[in-house]
Amino acid sequence: MDKQKLIIVKIGGNVIDNKKALSVFLKQFASITENTILVHGGGKLATELAKKLDIPVQVHEGRRITNKETLDIATMVYAGLISKNITAQLQAKGRNAIGLSGADGNCIKAGKREVKEIDYGFVGDLNSASVNISFFNELLKQGICPVISAITHDGSGNLLNTNADTIASALSVALSEFFEVKLVYCFEKSGVLKDVNDESSLFRKINAIEYAFFKQSGIINGGMLPKLDNAFGALSNGVNLVHIGRSEQLLELIKTENHAGTTLYK
Amino acid sequence: MDKQKLIIVKIGGNVIDNKKALSVFLKQFASITENTILVHGGGKLATELAKKLDIPVQVHEGRRITNKETLDIATMVYAGLISKNITAQLQAKGRNAIGLSGADGNCIKAGKREVKEIDYGFVGDLNSASVNISFFNELLKQGICPVISAITHDGSGNLLNTNADTIASALSVALSEFFEVKLVYCFEKSGVLKDVNDESSLFRKINAIEYAFFKQSGIINGGMLPKLDNAFGALSNGVNLVHIGRSEQLLELIKTENHAGTTLYK
Repeated sequence: MDKQKLIIVKIGGNVIDNKKALSVFLKQFASITENTILVHGGGKLATELAKKLDIPVQVHEGRRITNKETLDIATMVYAGLISKNITAQLQAKGRNAIGLSGADGNCIKAGKREVKEIDYGFVGDLNSASVNISFFNELLKQGICPVISAITHDGSGNLLNTNADTIASALSVALSEFFEVKLVYCFEKSGVLKDVNDESSLFRKINAIEYAFFKQSGIINGGMLPKLDNAFGALSNGVNLVHIGRSEQLLELIKTENHAGTTLYK
Repeated sequence: MDKQKLIIVKIGGNVIDNKKALSVFLKQFASITENTILVHGGGKLATELAKKLDIPVQVHEGRRITNKETLDIATMVYAGLISKNITAQLQAKGRNAIGLSGADGNCIKAGKREVKEIDYGFVGDLNSASVNISFFNELLKQGICPVISAITHDGSGNLLNTNADTIASALSVALSEFFEVKLVYCFEKSGVLKDVNDESSLFRKINAIEYAFFKQSGIINGGMLPKLDNAFGALSNGVNLVHIGRSEQLLELIKTENHAGTTLYK
């Protein structure tokens, strides 16, 4: 039997922080007839709330430390405010959705990051057994779209802040056993660019060999690398295609022919 | 075929605000072998957060008005922080649970309260079609315990603050078609008291006829009346028994013989 299609979409702060952009995106997302999962990051709201509450942001070499107070804010904003508002909006647009943290249904269990030189605090790392595949299968079978926030748990009662790109990639890989998975990363640019300052310098397609070359030669660099490493990791572990581009173009991104954005393939 | 048993427990601020009491309660709750649903209110956290953020609490004749800012705080605290922490703790205690607002899986749809003399804002009222029975049946069939926060939705994209006692009672009535339902209200006293200042003046059992008499004669009065009206409403609509008492005594409350607290019956 052919596998059913599953489209996993990750959105970040640039969509979440913009009411209009979020509404436009959710309308497109709700119109997708295939199985879907939405993964969302946090955006500025958590930072703003921390500021209002006088909770200092601790940073070590550019990476945030998640202490208990910061974790509580992330839990309130990501798994509460953003998750429930997205879910309510999807319901209003006719898409039955469910907002989940990793603790819910034990759907994503992470390990608290080991303390080496530095203690990152309540930060979760995923492994190959993190995703509760049967739980997601059940929801998708019922026609319900999981909306996943970047909060997981460790099974010992701790919630953990977890990278949303990584969650999207782990979900894609785990569910590719049962579904033909497309992974879509929406971000603030129209795709992977040869020149970050020139939106017309878009790569239409990149395969793994080309990526290795572009990476080594420095043509693709900086902040794109973790996202693309995640994406090619997913491709080499069962995911069919990865699309990268703007949330406004969601329906064009997921087209197979004449698509918008950049398509990554094995 | 005999109906399966379902125990629906509602806890309020006195448990949620006390870390130790919550942990003791959750340990007992996780040990229940029957189907369970947990409904939780808010507690002081939301009020404290509103205070820190300088958001004034609007009150009309003793009843709170839920404006957009207050709703956001309730959503963050109830459906985010409290819901996810309770769920993670239940997972750690071996109980598979899922934290839900009414928007999730469209599980509880409310109507925004009509504006008459006064606009209560984003407050939801339930009706007989509010509970998505098949969604709860599916979760319970999978052995998952729903943890319900007092946030519902209206199906048009709005989240709504909703009374947790009423949610517990509506769930009990709706699910009594498929389950033999016990509804348990945990609160700060050992049960319904003849004299509110004397914990030993506990009613062990009250039936509907006795309640009508105690109510009319003023023996039971004040803040207990809405809770008991809810409870007897549930009993007259299919719920088997209602237990009222302290969360510390949960396992004694739900006993049929020699139980703690007050048992209400038809």
